[in-house]
Amino acid sequence: MKYSIGVDMGGTNTDIGLVSENGNIVQRRNMPTSAYTELDPYVRDMMHLVDEMVKEQEMLDGEAINLEGIGIGAPNGNYYTGCVDNAPNLTIKGVLDFGKEIRKYRMVPVVLSNDANAAAYGEYVYGGARGMKHFIMFTLGTGVGSGIVVDGKLVHGSTGAAGELGHNILIPHGRKCSCGREGCLETYTSARGIVQTYCELKGCEVTPEITSMMIGNLAHEGDPTALRTWEIVGDQLGLAMANSVTFSAPEAIFLMGGPTKVGEPLLKPLRAAFDKYLLNIYAGTCSIRMSELHANEVAILGAAALLKMKE
Amino acid sequence: MKYSIGVDMGGTNTDIGLVSENGNIVQRRNMPTSAYTELDPYVRDMMHLVDEMVKEQEMLDGEAINLEGIGIGAPNGNYYTGCVDNAPNLTIKGVLDFGKEIRKYRMVPVVLSNDANAAAYGEYVYGGARGMKHFIMFTLGTGVGSGIVVDGKLVHGSTGAAGELGHNILIPHGRKCSCGREGCLETYTSARGIVQTYCELKGCEVTPEITSMMIGNLAHEGDPTALRTWEIVGDQLGLAMANSVTFSAPEAIFLMGGPTKVGEPLLKPLRAAFDKYLLNIYAGTCSIRMSELHANEVAILGAAALLKMKE
Repeated sequence: MKYSIGVDMGGTNTDIGLVSENGNIVQRRNMPTSAYTELDPYVRDMMHLVDEMVKEQEMLDGEAINLEGIGIGAPNGNYYTGCVDNAPNLTIKGVLDFGKEIRKYRMVPVVLSNDANAAAYGEYVYGGARGMKHFIMFTLGTGVGSGIVVDGKLVHGSTGAAGELGHNILIPHGRKCSCGREGCLETYTSARGIVQTYCELKGCEVTPEITSMMIGNLAHEGDPTALRTWEIVGDQLGLAMANSVTFSAPEAIFLMGGPTKVGEPLLKPLRAAFDKYLLNIYAGTCSIRMSELHANEVAILGAAALLKMKE
Repeated sequence: MKYSIGVDMGGTNTDIGLVSENGNIVQRRNMPTSAYTELDPYVRDMMHLVDEMVKEQEMLDGEAINLEGIGIGAPNGNYYTGCVDNAPNLTIKGVLDFGKEIRKYRMVPVVLSNDANAAAYGEYVYGGARGMKHFIMFTLGTGVGSGIVVDGKLVHGSTGAAGELGHNILIPHGRKCSCGREGCLETYTSARGIVQTYCELKGCEVTPEITSMMIGNLAHEGDPTALRTWEIVGDQLGLAMANSVTFSAPEAIFLMGGPTKVGEPLLKPLRAAFDKYLLNIYAGTCSIRMSELHANEVAILGAAALLKMKE
């Protein structure tokens, strides 16, 4: 049987899964990313877990498995170089050459990209975007990420860093962004941006207790400030999505991530705004859809899916 | 010898050229588009001119020529269908199936796209974008068009209508656009948008006498209102270009069209704004460049270049 490894490298934790050809995660392991400051021991321990999963699955299958390769979704992951480039939220610093390090343990293909690109490709290989040639994925979380598929291929661009729509400037001279500029989409529709909008409306201080999940719960209880927050966020995200259509005329835009779990309080104003801001020649050609992958599987599946990419 | 035909179909005139393999327009003809209300006689007369050019070139070459095909750049030209779809600025109405009509006269490949896409592909095959895999072309004129090349291929999207960055909403709830929405890039950086900005600064009415060319000349004479106009336009276009980089991380953004002829009064603030608005991870990876094709050749060369497109 053929399997692949998907690695979701986050700042705090690393999730590793053994994925079957039809997209089931048959084995799973976890390790603490933030416990490491060097790539060498991190990869050594990761490959130990990979060996464990492979052995366990071989016992279950009763035969040696065929490991297609290792796909990694990581912050600042660069598809072309196979390296993680100076990710600010990792404790392992510098340019990390995963391919070189991994192949000390196992001679397999290693493919790496950033987490939003991996999520988009996971949707394409295992989720709701199967069979689509043109779509865009927006991931809402601490930040806002995106992955863009054109003609059935992830857009990596000339540097490998294409698809950063979270840093599209939505409102010129708008909110200050962590990137140093102003008005980025991320400052409005990330979890943090949503909290900021709520607090501005409420006239209160931003505190760690106020989360986008809390604002989601309040909206479902009918809280008018919370409902208004999601209306504003939906309008802003709808505008950003309508703008992205002028680029690649996708047949769908997918949405995933924590804040999207609120559902209709976000989706209703989002769809209305998307229709309002969409250039008329695209009317009816592009739908907004939720990711069809499970939230706790998408990162591993997406990372594993990177191995299916065709040049 | 191998040649191709490039057809630049404008609302008023149609320019037709016979193009050699190395990108020289060796024969040229012109016919008045607006004199026609039906596709049938328009194509008949066009093919008559094609025959003329082919015969003349065969006399010069002393041998039969190999005609690769006919490429057409046209408003609302759809690459997938090969049709012009209800272009508002054409006197020939409806959905125009050029391929079918042309092949009544000559059995050759016919490829069609919109004019900005053709310009981008012309730059790729014959101009400054040769060898580039990722770039974007912005065309400033009556409107603002764009053509996007990703992985060496024009982005057509799911409908054939990708690459309409002139209708990216730059300033939410900004200027009213002819498309019915507000704040599109085109309302600020088209010839008309530039005139509007100048008149707003000057506090005068928009009249047909005030043109972007006039405002260009005034800028070169040191007129402060004209100089300020170009600064504003450069800032707006620089923002739009920086935003487009977050999509496809191109190695260059090309610029062409009437208003760009002003040169430094536009280009200096444009480059400054682009640097200011560019996400730091792209710093130094993308340059702004003027089209290297002659203004009166780009449309024909671009149309002919469409025949070089690989699936």
